[in-house]
Amino acid sequence: DRLVAAVRGHLSASGRPPRGLVLLQDIASGQSILFAPRLPAEYAVWMGEIKPLSYFKDTYKVDMVFYVDEIAQVVQDRFRDHGKPLLFLLHGKNTDSGNFSKPASFEGMEKFDTDLTTLHPILTECRVIKSDLELAIIQYANDISSEAHIEVMRQARPGMKEYQLESIFLHHVYMYGGCRHCSYTCICATGDNSAVLHYGHAAAPNDRTLNDGDMALMDMGAEYQFYGSDITCSYPINGKFNSSQIIIYNAVLKAHNAVISHMRPGVNYLEMHKLAERAILESLRKEQILQGDVDDMMAQRLGAVFMPHGLGHLLGIDTHDPGGYPEGLERPKEPGLSSLRTTRELKEGMVITVEPGCYFIDTLLTKARDDPISSKFFNWQELEKYKSFGGVRIESDVYVTAQGCRNLTNCPRETWEIEAVMAGAPWPLPASGSTV
Amino acid sequence: DRLVAAVRGHLSASGRPPRGLVLLQDIASGQSILFAPRLPAEYAVWMGEIKPLSYFKDTYKVDMVFYVDEIAQVVQDRFRDHGKPLLFLLHGKNTDSGNFSKPASFEGMEKFDTDLTTLHPILTECRVIKSDLELAIIQYANDISSEAHIEVMRQARPGMKEYQLESIFLHHVYMYGGCRHCSYTCICATGDNSAVLHYGHAAAPNDRTLNDGDMALMDMGAEYQFYGSDITCSYPINGKFNSSQIIIYNAVLKAHNAVISHMRPGVNYLEMHKLAERAILESLRKEQILQGDVDDMMAQRLGAVFMPHGLGHLLGIDTHDPGGYPEGLERPKEPGLSSLRTTRELKEGMVITVEPGCYFIDTLLTKARDDPISSKFFNWQELEKYKSFGGVRIESDVYVTAQGCRNLTNCPRETWEIEAVMAGAPWPLPASGSTV
Ligand SMILES: [Mn+2]
Ligand SMILES: [Mn+2]
Repeated sequence: DRLVAAVRGHLSASGRPPRGLVLLQDIASGQSILFAPRLPAEYAVWMGEIKPLSYFKDTYKVDMVFYVDEIAQVVQDRFRDHGKPLLFLLHGKNTDSGNFSKPASFEGMEKFDTDLTTLHPILTECRVIKSDLELAIIQYANDISSEAHIEVMRQARPGMKEYQLESIFLHHVYMYGGCRHCSYTCICATGDNSAVLHYGHAAAPNDRTLNDGDMALMDMGAEYQFYGSDITCSYPINGKFNSSQIIIYNAVLKAHNAVISHMRPGVNYLEMHKLAERAILESLRKEQILQGDVDDMMAQRLGAVFMPHGLGHLLGIDTHDPGGYPEGLERPKEPGLSSLRTTRELKEGMVITVEPGCYFIDTLLTKARDDPISSKFFNWQELEKYKSFGGVRIESDVYVTAQGCRNLTNCPRETWEIEAVMAGAPWPLPASGSTV
Repeated sequence: DRLVAAVRGHLSASGRPPRGLVLLQDIASGQSILFAPRLPAEYAVWMGEIKPLSYFKDTYKVDMVFYVDEIAQVVQDRFRDHGKPLLFLLHGKNTDSGNFSKPASFEGMEKFDTDLTTLHPILTECRVIKSDLELAIIQYANDISSEAHIEVMRQARPGMKEYQLESIFLHHVYMYGGCRHCSYTCICATGDNSAVLHYGHAAAPNDRTLNDGDMALMDMGAEYQFYGSDITCSYPINGKFNSSQIIIYNAVLKAHNAVISHMRPGVNYLEMHKLAERAILESLRKEQILQGDVDDMMAQRLGAVFMPHGLGHLLGIDTHDPGGYPEGLERPKEPGLSSLRTTRELKEGMVITVEPGCYFIDTLLTKARDDPISSKFFNWQELEKYKSFGGVRIESDVYVTAQGCRNLTNCPRETWEIEAVMAGAPWPLPASGSTV
């Protein structure tokens, strides 16, 4: 007959998170108690005004507020009549990294019973289904990021540096959207760099010069009020697709559109991944880059040679939001599928990325060539043409509705749309010009 | 009769630092051995080309290169004939934070003797005196940051947001200077925010609207190839100093210029701090904001009411570079002086910031008013006028030469220079216009 309570560290509900807040939720009554750090007088000189407790009560819309150093006393006083209180703490495994979140702790915590396993799956599931307010913020991050992508494609020219495209993006989302941070390090890959999936990190910092004839793969997304966006646009630096660029681009676009047209509650994301793989393999076969039966290619997992990453992932406060593999759902082991960050059935309210890609990656192609069973599916002579092509990725953020889904991203996707926008046309294209 | 060797973690000499490099320097022979991480084949797919060992040898200009997992074996083989090798590891206290650097470690290290105390003060002292190449990089970071500050002051207008000024700065140094990072979080403080010394952090994220009549205090510096710059410009948002803004600005400028004109090898930085305090107190007395004898004010430490931070700090790879308090030099305890990050004598080759400021900080003024001895120095009626003034800081990065010093920062500093540049004049001002 005990009362139970939940404690979290570093919760924040506004753009100005003071460090060290702790939230306690009285599960029996539903009341929330926030504990704020007690700051030294010097804080006012270096960091700014010390806010009264009432500020935290109003800002975070909680029922009560105290100082962090009062937690043990408050909990004891409040639950004294109900035996030893049980604290549910947030401590769970990140299914991508394998790391664990650090549970909240405070002085005097040893006086209470704690539970490290119950809270994490519950809160994770709360994060999987987005509220209307969460959706509105993610839509905002998508709107400003879509705009910024268009600004970048309009300014891209041979002779520029990849990092200049990054700078244009960052400036647009901050200057005009108030987004101080991006959800992840910008990937501004051109030429063969676009076949490096996580290009742009400190050891490969977007420092190549853009060449006439290069494809660009721009994976960039702004964050707003802690919620992210994750968008990839691929296009030719010189503004005009050549024939092999059209082939690969349209193979990926077909996969992207096929997935979005199938998405609705109840659909399994592993099936969507395979749908994308199949669409790409079929296109490559049609262009005689591959040969043989597509079902056989699927059985041989050839999709993973061209798309070694997963089709997409849940998106929210984290770019790779948690909840992809709840208890009981196992990550697949097969090539390509093992990179998928969720194999869940879609549910209304999820926001998930759709990001098929087709890349020409030396190490993976060499491996396929060395394997006698895989090798026979490839037209190696035709593949020669794509040796330094790099890759194409098209990524949108998609909200699952009751009946289907809604694409939150708004960038030109058809090759003629991209060419028109890069040549200076407004976006969206005027109605009369949309089928040029 | 042992050979000795030095090991460091995370050393880097280029803009593309792979993680986990370890450098070993054979102190007897002077030869350097670099150990690079052995990367899994998957690295090529996600992160990019796996570089051969020869790449590291060429890039880092070392004598030998091996893999990190070979360290123990290489050390053992190499120094077998000289007894048990002694490894000097980098482990030292940061005199600002009190934190310790984490020494390098590797498998099999327990086979060697280690020394945690010798290396840190030696390497720290190497960092205090800049080489010509280091100086050239710091000059570059200063050049592009000075330019960016000017761009910001030209674009600043009432109605904009503080973060838009930040965005203009960040974009300029990245787009035109290739500086992906800043040395520290941008402080874009306007109005009374400019009296919050470390404004701009996550809980006060440069989100105020700029008003006509506000002063701006812009503390921003780009980083290039790991070396930083640290520059503050203060000016009126509307482009025209009013009378009280001129008074406070010129008080700080006088301190800034007095310090730079006195800096040369052998001069103690504590004395420079006091020189700046005295210059500010004299100006405030002349304007009848203060009253009484300036020597008495100095004895009463009144300078710290208006400038609670230190005059400056060593600058290099860290914005607050180490070496400010070598063994034997104690940090002062008195108000204001205790914030000083070094009280060393200047030496040729040091790069140090000169950043006097004058702020009207409620909590500090209230404290001074409540103290009967301090209180009588203030003309409280006159001070009323500055209630929501905020503050002024002028910060330059200065290189100590054999005979004096050289200012690496190149921003308009005189009030008429600032007004001219904000009105669109080129910088430097044309010769004929320089005394308008
Ligand atoms: Mn993604
Ligand atoms: Mn500084």
